[in-house]
Amino acid sequence: MKDKPLILVSNDDGIEAAGVRRLVETLSGIGDVVCVCPDGPRSGQSMAISVNTPLRATRLADYSGATMYKVNGTPVDCVKLSMHTLLDRRPDIIVSGINHGSNAAVNVVYSGTMGAAMEGCAFGIPSVGFSLTDHSPDADFSPCLPWIERICRGVLANGLPDGVCLNVNFPVVDAEPAEMRVVRAARGKWSDEYKEYIDPHGHKFYWLTGRFENEEPDADNTDEWCLSHGIVSVVPTMLDRTAAPCAGIEWLRGI
Amino acid sequence: MKDKPLILVSNDDGIEAAGVRRLVETLSGIGDVVCVCPDGPRSGQSMAISVNTPLRATRLADYSGATMYKVNGTPVDCVKLSMHTLLDRRPDIIVSGINHGSNAAVNVVYSGTMGAAMEGCAFGIPSVGFSLTDHSPDADFSPCLPWIERICRGVLANGLPDGVCLNVNFPVVDAEPAEMRVVRAARGKWSDEYKEYIDPHGHKFYWLTGRFENEEPDADNTDEWCLSHGIVSVVPTMLDRTAAPCAGIEWLRGI
Repeated sequence: MKDKPLILVSNDDGIEAAGVRRLVETLSGIGDVVCVCPDGPRSGQSMAISVNTPLRATRLADYSGATMYKVNGTPVDCVKLSMHTLLDRRPDIIVSGINHGSNAAVNVVYSGTMGAAMEGCAFGIPSVGFSLTDHSPDADFSPCLPWIERICRGVLANGLPDGVCLNVNFPVVDAEPAEMRVVRAARGKWSDEYKEYIDPHGHKFYWLTGRFENEEPDADNTDEWCLSHGIVSVVPTMLDRTAAPCAGIEWLRGI
Repeated sequence: MKDKPLILVSNDDGIEAAGVRRLVETLSGIGDVVCVCPDGPRSGQSMAISVNTPLRATRLADYSGATMYKVNGTPVDCVKLSMHTLLDRRPDIIVSGINHGSNAAVNVVYSGTMGAAMEGCAFGIPSVGFSLTDHSPDADFSPCLPWIERICRGVLANGLPDGVCLNVNFPVVDAEPAEMRVVRAARGKWSDEYKEYIDPHGHKFYWLTGRFENEEPDADNTDEWCLSHGIVSVVPTMLDRTAAPCAGIEWLRGI
């Protein structure tokens, strides 16, 4: 008998992160929550899967009524292993986050948080990733929580189109944002991507850093615009990557 | 003075892989080749980036006239670090592969080979990933090479649409395939994704495996159909993930 919806929660900041704890607390009021997260930070893991190493899931103490597991793998590994063995029925929704830091614009492609949501898509399960534009360890997630509850209840009631998940980003605000918009990912690029160092032996090494440059700061139908105006952004995000129909490659047929 | 096109080569099977060696040999006849690959296998790394660990690039002996580097990171790290510091000018094309194994259908989302090509897209550089549907260590890449040369010469001459790279997959054949088609990624799913083991202490662990099930084997406009019919498949592949316009989420605006 199925009384309550089954909610699978994951993230890329790891099982100890404040963001996923707030998410579990919020969602445990909506359904039965099973939370399966990496055993440590896996930021920037995109849709990476562990091909050459074994995986192990370790059950932890329940938290806020939720069943908790840590996995020695990526966010996508967490979702796949949950579907394969940890869940006793198919989840009604997969929710990832709350990420510490924005996953707007091109950042969605590197995001482990959105990797888990897109893997949910691959299983045909309505999936949502939530991120807050604030990397600080004491970030306040509470302004996000009412929106998260409404969006998840809405997804449970209405579903999502096949192959589409939601990439939801929250601006840094002190109170609950007044508005949410469905928009597209802004175009932009990262620059100055590495800090250079010299090791004690005189050899260079590099550490990823950089600045994101929004190439269309005035486009009010983009996620970056929303975030810079205190508005919650929702970008419907596809698993399929096919660019079709695609002009500009007609020459290919003649080679 | 720019005499010859600059070609950046990467892959996800690592600098020692036969596939990238054949690719370098082929492309060194077209332009100046700089090959920057992971220092070991990074299959399934998708668009993962190394956020929390330092990167190092090590110059190796030239191979077939190409400058060779190995990097202790992912395929995307290789492209980013090349753009930041290893290349002395902007490459005219980024070519990734030849992957040992197909990256058709949903496999594109997990593929490190295609991760490197999509990162090329993020830099606005025409990029192509090549994969052969054959995992065996002694796979014969030679039937692919004439197609690879034609496709890369074509991309250098014609460019690619902004934000679009090519996912090229080769069927297993003894001779050069007679035909190439521009198609879309087939819909399909992986199932039975883990083999279960018991460790000496009685605890379970899991290793990724599984079977891909093509959900539309008769759709002749898909990559999987081409590969099963001895035809080279080319899927124009987007970096942007926005699903727009997207029906089925109108309810979101009312919550």
